[in-house]
Amino acid sequence: MAGVPHLMTLADLSAPQISRVIQRAALLKRVSKPWVSPAVGGKALVPGSGTPEPEQSLAHKTIALLFSKRSTRTRLAAETACLHLGGRALFLGTEDIQLGVNESARDSARVIGGMCQGIFARVGEHAEIEELARHSPVPVINALSSFWHPTQILADYLTLQEHAHLFPGSSSPSSSDALPELPPLTVAYVGDSANVLHDMLVTYPRLGHALRVASPPQPQYRAPTPVWDRVVELGCDKRITWVTDPREAVHGADVVVTDTWISMGQEAEKPQRLKDFAGYQVTEKLCREGGANPDWKFLHCLPRKQDEVDDEVFYGPRSLVFSEADNRKWTIMALFDLLFGKWDKTLLQ
Amino acid sequence: MAGVPHLMTLADLSAPQISRVIQRAALLKRVSKPWVSPAVGGKALVPGSGTPEPEQSLAHKTIALLFSKRSTRTRLAAETACLHLGGRALFLGTEDIQLGVNESARDSARVIGGMCQGIFARVGEHAEIEELARHSPVPVINALSSFWHPTQILADYLTLQEHAHLFPGSSSPSSSDALPELPPLTVAYVGDSANVLHDMLVTYPRLGHALRVASPPQPQYRAPTPVWDRVVELGCDKRITWVTDPREAVHGADVVVTDTWISMGQEAEKPQRLKDFAGYQVTEKLCREGGANPDWKFLHCLPRKQDEVDDEVFYGPRSLVFSEADNRKWTIMALFDLLFGKWDKTLLQ
Amino acid sequence: MAGVPHLMTLADLSAPQISRVIQRAALLKRVSKPWVSPAVGGKALVPGSGTPEPEQSLAHKTIALLFSKRSTRTRLAAETACLHLGGRALFLGTEDIQLGVNESARDSARVIGGMCQGIFARVGEHAEIEELARHSPVPVINALSSFWHPTQILADYLTLQEHAHLFPGSSSPSSSDALPELPPLTVAYVGDSANVLHDMLVTYPRLGHALRVASPPQPQYRAPTPVWDRVVELGCDKRITWVTDPREAVHGADVVVTDTWISMGQEAEKPQRLKDFAGYQVTEKLCREGGANPDWKFLHCLPRKQDEVDDEVFYGPRSLVFSEADNRKWTIMALFDLLFGKWDKTLLQ
Repeated sequence: MAGVPHLMTLADLSAPQISRVIQRAALLKRVSKPWVSPAVGGKALVPGSGTPEPEQSLAHKTIALLFSKRSTRTRLAAETACLHLGGRALFLGTEDIQLGVNESARDSARVIGGMCQGIFARVGEHAEIEELARHSPVPVINALSSFWHPTQILADYLTLQEHAHLFPGSSSPSSSDALPELPPLTVAYVGDSANVLHDMLVTYPRLGHALRVASPPQPQYRAPTPVWDRVVELGCDKRITWVTDPREAVHGADVVVTDTWISMGQEAEKPQRLKDFAGYQVTEKLCREGGANPDWKFLHCLPRKQDEVDDEVFYGPRSLVFSEADNRKWTIMALFDLLFGKWDKTLLQ
Repeated sequence: MAGVPHLMTLADLSAPQISRVIQRAALLKRVSKPWVSPAVGGKALVPGSGTPEPEQSLAHKTIALLFSKRSTRTRLAAETACLHLGGRALFLGTEDIQLGVNESARDSARVIGGMCQGIFARVGEHAEIEELARHSPVPVINALSSFWHPTQILADYLTLQEHAHLFPGSSSPSSSDALPELPPLTVAYVGDSANVLHDMLVTYPRLGHALRVASPPQPQYRAPTPVWDRVVELGCDKRITWVTDPREAVHGADVVVTDTWISMGQEAEKPQRLKDFAGYQVTEKLCREGGANPDWKFLHCLPRKQDEVDDEVFYGPRSLVFSEADNRKWTIMALFDLLFGKWDKTLLQ
Repeated sequence: MAGVPHLMTLADLSAPQISRVIQRAALLKRVSKPWVSPAVGGKALVPGSGTPEPEQSLAHKTIALLFSKRSTRTRLAAETACLHLGGRALFLGTEDIQLGVNESARDSARVIGGMCQGIFARVGEHAEIEELARHSPVPVINALSSFWHPTQILADYLTLQEHAHLFPGSSSPSSSDALPELPPLTVAYVGDSANVLHDMLVTYPRLGHALRVASPPQPQYRAPTPVWDRVVELGCDKRITWVTDPREAVHGADVVVTDTWISMGQEAEKPQRLKDFAGYQVTEKLCREGGANPDWKFLHCLPRKQDEVDDEVFYGPRSLVFSEADNRKWTIMALFDLLFGKWDKTLLQ
């Protein structure tokens, strides 16, 4: 509906808006942590204890989580984020609702939006969430679609900023509370062109970083046209190098990112995919041979399989994957606060 | 159990008691709305902001939602209503509990009632909810059964009162906060004799309105004996006209109501039902030919299929269906407040 | 992880620690009851009313409920306990997460523990919960495993203490708020050697009571080696008598306990089990013939089938089963308060 702030992809935000969401996430993380940390001396923080609570911008508010596929991380992040903001999440899986099956998506959007104050939806085809946003009277945030995965990239970027000191050339933050700025990085992505990569494509170049992608030569592993159109429209293509050899992609990389090659629903394609992605497993050897920055760091959105990254990297000191997973919560919380709690239209218009 | 206030159907309430629940719903809607409305100027209402919160009569209380069939609207309404009252709903679907399968309904009622402070149950056969109420130590409210659907009719009536100005002869409310009274209306129901209609049958006549029903001549589309017995017992039959021609039913109607002809579990009967209900689709043409009041309004409990009402009516200016859906929340909230929060025995005894 | 307090079985606690948890449960029950009792005179207690709320040690905290099998009682107890402590439970059934299927248990434990402040897990094989505890950064409590069921025995023991006056030789409590002490009792268990019995084996003898067990002679109805090793290690075997004749087991019993013979997943073994457990049904006759204390009381963890206990006993005045079910809530609440809320390492080290 007109005037309602939705978020389908980070391509919908300007670079300063993206930075603002991440700064908000860092602030919410700082004020919330004392509440959820292990109690000191056997005393838990309780309301009225003098320690300020995070602003309760979701008080009395319910956020509908419409998930047509399951996702532990995204769901946990959303549910715990709602709680910190004083609201609650209402999880609706395929057992509870199937968009368009027993009722049109249009009617469901209107009914859910009449009782809840925000919709966080993980759908199949991206067109489904566009349809929801078209008819919802409350903000809709894309939790994951066939095309985009905006909340993942927010978490990735917060994680990189928190670890800025690990990259050469990082500057100190302007105040002790501010996040440090990242120096211009080279970020390599090795794998399938899927929703995680797509939001990287429209984001990293605008934040000052070069992106190097390796995917197999077959067309199905390339970004679909509607995605690439957004990349070009934002001028991001100028800082993207797309190759088929993973060694070439990791050349000079400060950060190496991958994702599973076989997502939910693609199990039938597994043998073909294993063949097409031969040589794509992220390992110390691959990055050494390709000439990655010796201090390269590793990101993965999880869940992880051995196919795409070995144990040495995944559980090793280069890996930032569990910080990255934790940050799903704080970045989603920032979006919920700004859009569902405050309908901040200066953020999205 | 003796002394515990349950609600199985609106037939359990007197007309003044029904009005009291609806007035309570209107009050709760008024005080809750500021909390869930879009933030003004990017500031959300938060506790302690000076704006009064709805009375937290469900603080620390958990309401069990026992749903043997799924229902998006009823569930969303119940979950969000609990939150506004400071409590929480605990949804138990057939994946979680199956009454009488792994444990007797008697034992389940006692155990659930020992941990939760109210039970809102959507069952199959009406006898199941009667069995729950017999053994539960806490109030049980019927969320939907084979016979009755009391919370739907409360929402319908609140919607009509809020739109009283659309009907000729309505009076102004006595104060700016009070709901306007409705003039005597003619309400037409076109379709299957199911739970929605049944609670209409025991309610509208007692609130001063005439009811005209059209259903196909086959006996399975008529009200079952236990329902009709309640209708007669309350003297409602005197203001009910039951016909088989939908045109005849809508004659003089101020409000036209329908419901799906093919409910969950009846899919096998679909071809026969489509045949039996030929000509029953609510359309402008039907109501014009039947001689409905030119300003007739339309109600439907949702989810809606095209079979029973066309797009022109459903999405048109006569349709009050989305207000009606929204009001599920406030009327359920009123019942939860009075019965689960306050055990108000003057309401139900 | 090192330094994180987990609870796998009551064998992990000393006798004074067990008593401390039960005293805590009694206290939480006393302060919470006014909040969930039926309203007096139509007025519900609301925050700020002057009546002290239970300490909100789970404020802003989320507890993950990982349930690979459904369990109404355990789930209701956990969800309502969280609410009383100001937090919330996040239920994850097999529809939501399957440990080790789409992601390793190690990775899941780390991710869930990064977003939630405690894990309450009902698994299949006991090794699964040990694996979770090994990798979780937050406390893990065993909600039920193939070997152990610690929260059930806490509830049983609280129930017996609350009913101490029914047993000859009980002493008055030292203050009106304290729980009365139990005299040394003879507790009989008649049935399969399963998780409920196993936690009885490591607990009752250390709290001063004699345990008499009857199970069929076949080895599969005996305690498995890892369980019996713990029993012996704690010196509990000295006060345990294990026989095959149920009459012999109930001799002199003050309390008779049983459990279902056919648990979830064992349906295929039903005919054989019914044969093996012939004569094991707890009845007045069995206990009279066996020479139980004439005032013997009955416990059952529920859900109950007629096979193991008849209606006369189950619904009769000897039966404490519904108090026992209610106490699941308060004992789980005590554990959540101490471990998830306060990380009380003096409790578990």
